Amino acid sequence: MGTFELFKAHLTRITDLKMISSMMNWDMETYMPEKGGFYRGQQMATLSGIIHQMAIDPRLGKWIAQLQKDNQLNAVQKRSVALAKRGFERSGKYNEAFVVELSTTISASHQAWQKARAADDFSIFAPMLEKIVSIKRRECEILGYQDHPYDALIDQFEPGTTTAEVDTLFTEVRAQLMDFVHRIQLKQTPEVDFLYAAYPTNEQWDYGLALLQQMGYDFKAGRQDVSAHPFSTTFSPEDVRITTRVEEKNFYGMVWSCIHEGGHALYEQGMPTQYYGLPVCEYVSLGIHESQSRLWENNVGRSMSFWQNNFDALKNRFPEQLNGVSLSGFYRAINAVRPSLIRTHADELTYHFHILIRYKIEKALIEGSLEVRDLPAYWNACYKEYLGIDVPSDAEGVLQDIHWSHGSFGYFPTYSIGSFYAAQFYHQATKDIDNLEDEIASGNLKPLLGWLRKNIHQHGKMYTARELCERTTGEPLSFQYFMDYAFKKYGALYDMKVENVL
Amino acid sequence: MGTFELFKAHLTRITDLKMISSMMNWDMETYMPEKGGFYRGQQMATLSGIIHQMAIDPRLGKWIAQLQKDNQLNAVQKRSVALAKRGFERSGKYNEAFVVELSTTISASHQAWQKARAADDFSIFAPMLEKIVSIKRRECEILGYQDHPYDALIDQFEPGTTTAEVDTLFTEVRAQLMDFVHRIQLKQTPEVDFLYAAYPTNEQWDYGLALLQQMGYDFKAGRQDVSAHPFSTTFSPEDVRITTRVEEKNFYGMVWSCIHEGGHALYEQGMPTQYYGLPVCEYVSLGIHESQSRLWENNVGRSMSFWQNNFDALKNRFPEQLNGVSLSGFYRAINAVRPSLIRTHADELTYHFHILIRYKIEKALIEGSLEVRDLPAYWNACYKEYLGIDVPSDAEGVLQDIHWSHGSFGYFPTYSIGSFYAAQFYHQATKDIDNLEDEIASGNLKPLLGWLRKNIHQHGKMYTARELCERTTGEPLSFQYFMDYAFKKYGALYDMKVENVL
Repeated sequence: MGTFELFKAHLTRITDLKMISSMMNWDMETYMPEKGGFYRGQQMATLSGIIHQMAIDPRLGKWIAQLQKDNQLNAVQKRSVALAKRGFERSGKYNEAFVVELSTTISASHQAWQKARAADDFSIFAPMLEKIVSIKRRECEILGYQDHPYDALIDQFEPGTTTAEVDTLFTEVRAQLMDFVHRIQLKQTPEVDFLYAAYPTNEQWDYGLALLQQMGYDFKAGRQDVSAHPFSTTFSPEDVRITTRVEEKNFYGMVWSCIHEGGHALYEQGMPTQYYGLPVCEYVSLGIHESQSRLWENNVGRSMSFWQNNFDALKNRFPEQLNGVSLSGFYRAINAVRPSLIRTHADELTYHFHILIRYKIEKALIEGSLEVRDLPAYWNACYKEYLGIDVPSDAEGVLQDIHWSHGSFGYFPTYSIGSFYAAQFYHQATKDIDNLEDEIASGNLKPLLGWLRKNIHQHGKMYTARELCERTTGEPLSFQYFMDYAFKKYGALYDMKVENVL
Repeated sequence: MGTFELFKAHLTRITDLKMISSMMNWDMETYMPEKGGFYRGQQMATLSGIIHQMAIDPRLGKWIAQLQKDNQLNAVQKRSVALAKRGFERSGKYNEAFVVELSTTISASHQAWQKARAADDFSIFAPMLEKIVSIKRRECEILGYQDHPYDALIDQFEPGTTTAEVDTLFTEVRAQLMDFVHRIQLKQTPEVDFLYAAYPTNEQWDYGLALLQQMGYDFKAGRQDVSAHPFSTTFSPEDVRITTRVEEKNFYGMVWSCIHEGGHALYEQGMPTQYYGLPVCEYVSLGIHESQSRLWENNVGRSMSFWQNNFDALKNRFPEQLNGVSLSGFYRAINAVRPSLIRTHADELTYHFHILIRYKIEKALIEGSLEVRDLPAYWNACYKEYLGIDVPSDAEGVLQDIHWSHGSFGYFPTYSIGSFYAAQFYHQATKDIDNLEDEIASGNLKPLLGWLRKNIHQHGKMYTARELCERTTGEPLSFQYFMDYAFKKYGALYDMKVENVL
C-alpha cells in the first residue's frame, strides 16, 4: 500500500469506530432497557479510549508529514491531509488523564443536571457546573487561542469562527431583530390553540413519516424511532436515522421537529459516500448542519407555499382538530411570534434571543467574568431584558438545556448561525431555481433537494463554511438575508410597513 | 495496578468490544434499514480486527505467565487465568491473513446461501460451501486435535467434548429414540390444526410478553423486538435482549420460541455480574446454554403442569381459536410427534434425528469422506432413513439451515446435548425442590428459577460443563435422563407400555 492508502485505511478505521459509537448512543436514547446504562457507559468509554489512541497514533503523524510533501495528490486528497493534520494536532494536545477527567466529570455533571432539573433546584447542579467550567477553561489553554479563550471552544463546532466575529454578528442581530420583534408585539397575537388540540399519536406518527417521504428522505437508508428528545444520527451515509417525540397535545412540536431532523438527515444522506472514511466525507460545521435543518423547518416548512400543497391533506387527516381553520389562519398560527421561556418552543424570530442570552452567559463563564453561583439571577435578568418575561423556576430557566451539563460550550451560537446561513442559501436557491415557490406549492420538492445536494451536501467538508457560502451565494455569511426574510414574511403576516428589504 | 488488575482491565476492554459487536448484530437483525448492510459489515470487520489484536497482545501473554506462578490467587482468579490462557493460545494460532480469508469467505458464502435458498438451487451454494469446508479443514490443522479433525471444531462450542464422545452419545440416541419414535408413529396423530389458526399478531405479541414476565425475565434488563429469526443476545448481564417472529398463522411457533429465547436470556441475566469482563462471567458452553432454553421450552413449556396454570387464561385471550379445545387436547397437540422436513419445526423427539443427520454429514465433510457435490442426495437419503420422509426440494432440505454458510461446523450437536442436559437438570430439580410440578401448576416458577440461578447461572464459567453437571446432579451427562423423560411423558400421551424408566 502507498502512503495515502495507509493513511486512508487508518482514518477509515477511526470513522468506523465513531459510527459504532453513534449507534450505541442511538440505542441508549431509543431502546436500551432501564438497567442497561452502567455497562453501556463503560463500553462507550472503552471505545472512546481506543478511538483516541488511534487518533494520536504516531504513524498517522508520519503519514501526514509525508503526504504534505507529495505533489501528486489531487484536491480531495490534499484537503483530506490538511483536515487530518488539524485533527491529529488537536488530538495530540489532550493527554489521557485530561480525557478521562473530562469524560467522568461530564458523566457526573449530566446526572447532577438531571437531578437538579427534576427537583427544580439549581444548587444541586452548581458544584458540578463549576467543575465543568473550570475544566473547559483548562481545555481552552490546552487547545490554545489567539484573542479570547472562548475562541478555542467555538472552533470545535464552527471551525475558523472567532468570538469577535460572533460578537459582531450578534450585535447586529440584537439591534435589528429586537426592534422588529418589539414592533410585532404591538400587533394582535393570532389564534394558535388548535395546534395544541388532541391529535391521536398513531396518526401523528404516520403524518411525520409522510412528511419525511415528501422531503425525499430515503427510508431504505434510514428510519424513524421514538426518543425523549428528537435527534438525527449517522452510522454511514447509507444509514442515517431520525428520532421523534410524539405527544397527543403537541402535534405542533412533532411536525416541525420531524421536518427539522429530516433536514439534518438529508444532509447526511447526501454526503459523498465515495470518500467514506476521509474527513472530506463529513459535515462542514454545526452551523452548516443546522442551516440544512432550519432551511427545511422554517424557510420551507413554515412557508405559505408548502402548506398550499399540504393543508388540504392535513385537514382531511385531522378534520375535527382543524375544524373551521383556514389555510391563512393555519399559516398565521404556525408563524406566531411570542416571547417564551423555553428555547426549543420558540418561534423563528425570538429564538435568537434565547441564543444571544446563552452566548453572553457562556462567554462570561469561560472568561471568568460571571460566577456559577450568580447564574440563575443573571439568567432571569437576561430573560427580562431580551424577552420581557419573568422566569418562574430554574427548571424552566437556567436548567432547561442539556448542553452545559455535557460540557458543550461554544455550541449554542451555531443554532443562530445555521438559521442565518439557511436564509442566505434559500435566497440563492430562489434565484437559481425557476419558480421555486411554485414548485413547492405544487408539491415538488425535488428541485430544492437537488440544489442542496449539488451546492452543499455533495461537497462534504471539501470547503470551509466560509468558502462553501461564497461558492454558493457569492459572498460570506451576511445577517441581512435573514433580516430580509423576516421583514418580508412577518411584515406581511403582521401587516407592517418594513424597510431595508434587499 | 497489580498484574491481576492489568490482566482484568485488558480482558474487560475486550469484553466491552465483544458486547458492542453483539449490539451491531442485533441492530442488523432488527432495525437496520435495507441499504445499511455494506458499511455495517465493514464496521464490524474493523471491530473484529481490533478485538483480535487485543486478544493476541503480547502483554496479555506476559500477564498470564506471571499470574500462573502466583500462589495468592483465589479460585475465581485462578479459573480466569486458566480460561484466558486457553483463549490467548487459541487466538495466537490464527494469523491475520487466515482471519481475513475466513471472514470474507463466510460473508460471500452467506450471500450465496441466501440466493441458493431463494432459488431452491443447491448448485449456487456448492462452490462456496466447498471453499468453506476447505477453510474449516485448514482451521482444524491450525487449531490442532488429538484423534479426529472435527474435535477441533466441536471444542469451540462445547469445550472439552470430543468426536468420540459425541459418537457414543448419538449411537445411543439412535438406538433407543428411533425405536421409541417408530412405536409412537403406529399410534394415532392428535388434532393440531387449531394451533395454526389465525391468531391476531398484536395479541400474540402481548401474550409472549406475559409469558416472559411469568418466567421471571427482567424487562428492566432486557426487551423483546421483532426479527426474521428469533434469537437472544447479551450486551451485559443488565441488558439481555430477545427477538421473536410473529406471524398470524404461526402462534405455535411464536409461543415456544418465545419461551426458548426466554430460557437463554434468563441464563445471561443470571450471570455473576461482579465478574463482568473476566471469562468466568461467560456461559459454560453452547450445550449448557441450550439446556437452559430447552428446559424452559420443553420440560416446563410443554408440560401438563405449566398449562394447568395457563390454559384458562390462554383460552380467554383466544376464545375463537381455541373453541372446543380441552386442556388435554391442547397438551396432546403441543406434544404431537410427527416426522418433519424442517429442523426448527420438529417436535422434541424427532428433533434429534435432524441433528444426527447434520452431525453425520458435517463430520464426513470435515474428514473428507463426503464431497460437497454429493451432499443433496446424501441429505435426502438420510431423511428417508432417519425420518422416513421424502425431501421435495433443496430449500426445504439441505439449504434450510444457516449454520454451514456461516462456517459453524461443530455447532449442531450442542442442540441435542442441550436437550439431554436439560432433562438431567430438570430431573434433579424435581428431586431438590419440594413439589416442583405442583408449584408450576399453581403458577409459581420462582423455585425453579431460583434453583437454576443457584446451580447453573451464578457459576458462569467457573466450572466445565462436565464439572457443573456433576456438581449439580452427581454424575456426568447421561442420555438416560432424556429417554426416561421421553418414556414417561410420551408413554402416557400415546398410551404405550414403556420400560427402562429410571
